[in-house]
Amino acid sequence: MINVLFLAPPKNWVQYEAPLRAAFAKAGIHADLRVEFDPSDVDYVVYAPNGGQADFTPFTKLKAVLSLWAGVETMVDNPSLRVPLCRMVDHGLTESMVEWVTGQVLRYHLGMDQFVAAQDGVWRAGTAAPLARDRKVCVLGLGALGMACAKALSALNFDVHGWARSAKSCEGMTCHFGEDGLRGALSGADMVALLLPDTPATENVLNAERMALMAKGGFIVNPGRGPLIDDDALLAALDSGQLAHATLDVFRIEPLPEAHPFWVHPKVTVTPHIAAETKATTASEVIAQNVVLGEAGEPFLHVVDRAAGY
Amino acid sequence: MINVLFLAPPKNWVQYEAPLRAAFAKAGIHADLRVEFDPSDVDYVVYAPNGGQADFTPFTKLKAVLSLWAGVETMVDNPSLRVPLCRMVDHGLTESMVEWVTGQVLRYHLGMDQFVAAQDGVWRAGTAAPLARDRKVCVLGLGALGMACAKALSALNFDVHGWARSAKSCEGMTCHFGEDGLRGALSGADMVALLLPDTPATENVLNAERMALMAKGGFIVNPGRGPLIDDDALLAALDSGQLAHATLDVFRIEPLPEAHPFWVHPKVTVTPHIAAETKATTASEVIAQNVVLGEAGEPFLHVVDRAAGY
Repeated sequence: MINVLFLAPPKNWVQYEAPLRAAFAKAGIHADLRVEFDPSDVDYVVYAPNGGQADFTPFTKLKAVLSLWAGVETMVDNPSLRVPLCRMVDHGLTESMVEWVTGQVLRYHLGMDQFVAAQDGVWRAGTAAPLARDRKVCVLGLGALGMACAKALSALNFDVHGWARSAKSCEGMTCHFGEDGLRGALSGADMVALLLPDTPATENVLNAERMALMAKGGFIVNPGRGPLIDDDALLAALDSGQLAHATLDVFRIEPLPEAHPFWVHPKVTVTPHIAAETKATTASEVIAQNVVLGEAGEPFLHVVDRAAGY
Repeated sequence: MINVLFLAPPKNWVQYEAPLRAAFAKAGIHADLRVEFDPSDVDYVVYAPNGGQADFTPFTKLKAVLSLWAGVETMVDNPSLRVPLCRMVDHGLTESMVEWVTGQVLRYHLGMDQFVAAQDGVWRAGTAAPLARDRKVCVLGLGALGMACAKALSALNFDVHGWARSAKSCEGMTCHFGEDGLRGALSGADMVALLLPDTPATENVLNAERMALMAKGGFIVNPGRGPLIDDDALLAALDSGQLAHATLDVFRIEPLPEAHPFWVHPKVTVTPHIAAETKATTASEVIAQNVVLGEAGEPFLHVVDRAAGY
């Protein structure tokens, strides 16, 4: 019997208990899945950090911590966590991210908001959008999520320029790497989508200087993490006209406080962290797969590089 | 020397003269391109119908009429037109149609309008969209435009159901054919995109009975032709709640009259026939290609089946 502790808020237990039991059964795992255990008996922890920071010291036979979240920035610094930490890479989450990013980029590309608003009886002929192939879209971050978004936008013929800190394989788009590559990725970009992890190295990656590299009247889409953008610089760039509009799904403080200027700024759309959600059914299958690998002594999937922070 | 008459409104001449001359030169065609000729000298007519209906009887050595438009419903019945009529199939037009249809479907899928409107400081957690794979999208019409849209939506994982009058090859989606197939294509559809030609057989193809087959609260996207929809039935279905919203780019009368109920209906977005435009550069290349084929005695591309009407 494998002991699996579910260490996440009660609302997650409601979502996950049945899918996890089903996924373990389907994978042939005899698991005792519970929300309470004597720590010294636990083999695996299924974890979400918003249940409070855990001290993993008493978990003496722990084999791995399996995160329900893709973003692990609140977990990597936990000094009591000495076993592999696995990020969630859920195809349901990836799909919803691709759908959301593609939708927002097309919304800006087609000027949708103006048409939705202008139902005034005036036939504005000659207002068709240019072709996507004539729009430079910069995707910052080429992990599982960023690469999937970049590919979907490339398939729609956008002139996609991806950027990642370290070189990786890249087909069907232009890719830029490292500190030096960032300028080329951003220069003249009509739109920037932020899909980087939140690490000390990515904080304020989109600052005033880099916003100034974009095409005048450009657009920002941020479904990544709040700290990737310098908020004050963003507001200034929107006010000066350097940027035309931003759609932000993530923030330094969530829920975004009611008095935050983003809510009332005419050039900002706030969405409540909905771009991508882990789906319990598919995520449970990923967790079961990692338990199978762990029991077989094979390497885990999606292990976090603790030094890099993701 | 090949005599090519440009028979379209003056605004088209402004757009097309330079691209056509460039395309002819690039294709090695020695063409005399003009807006006036003695009709008996003309080899090819480049044609747009909004310059008024033409009598082609005096064009005694005419080899083909090359339409600047994809929709040829105003040309097919011309009894004086006895030579091949070629539709415009322009990759710029196809790309813009795919971008527009994909954007509108994602707009409905993601509930974008609600988020754009609701900038009131209220954090509405738990309002993420379902996955595209759980949305049935029906694409009526599987010609060059419809098939390209259906493929793009399939690539985004929508559950695409295509429909065409006659069977054609169909990969990566579910296809339905003929009168009997229409019910299966529409039944339970969350969204319907209309990409059929305007023929007597397609008039009011989306009528009250067929709207009732769709999922309650469904969405309509019409970038095809105005007469495909029974307008009164659409308004009734929106008012009853059977349909949630419609985005209409084409109308029985264009520009849509200022007093038309579509302009003020809260569940309708009117756009001014902008979904897809022929792009002069790429369209000129298609016309030059057809002149090359005609001079070589080869079959023309995109010849209209006059009996079918498209």
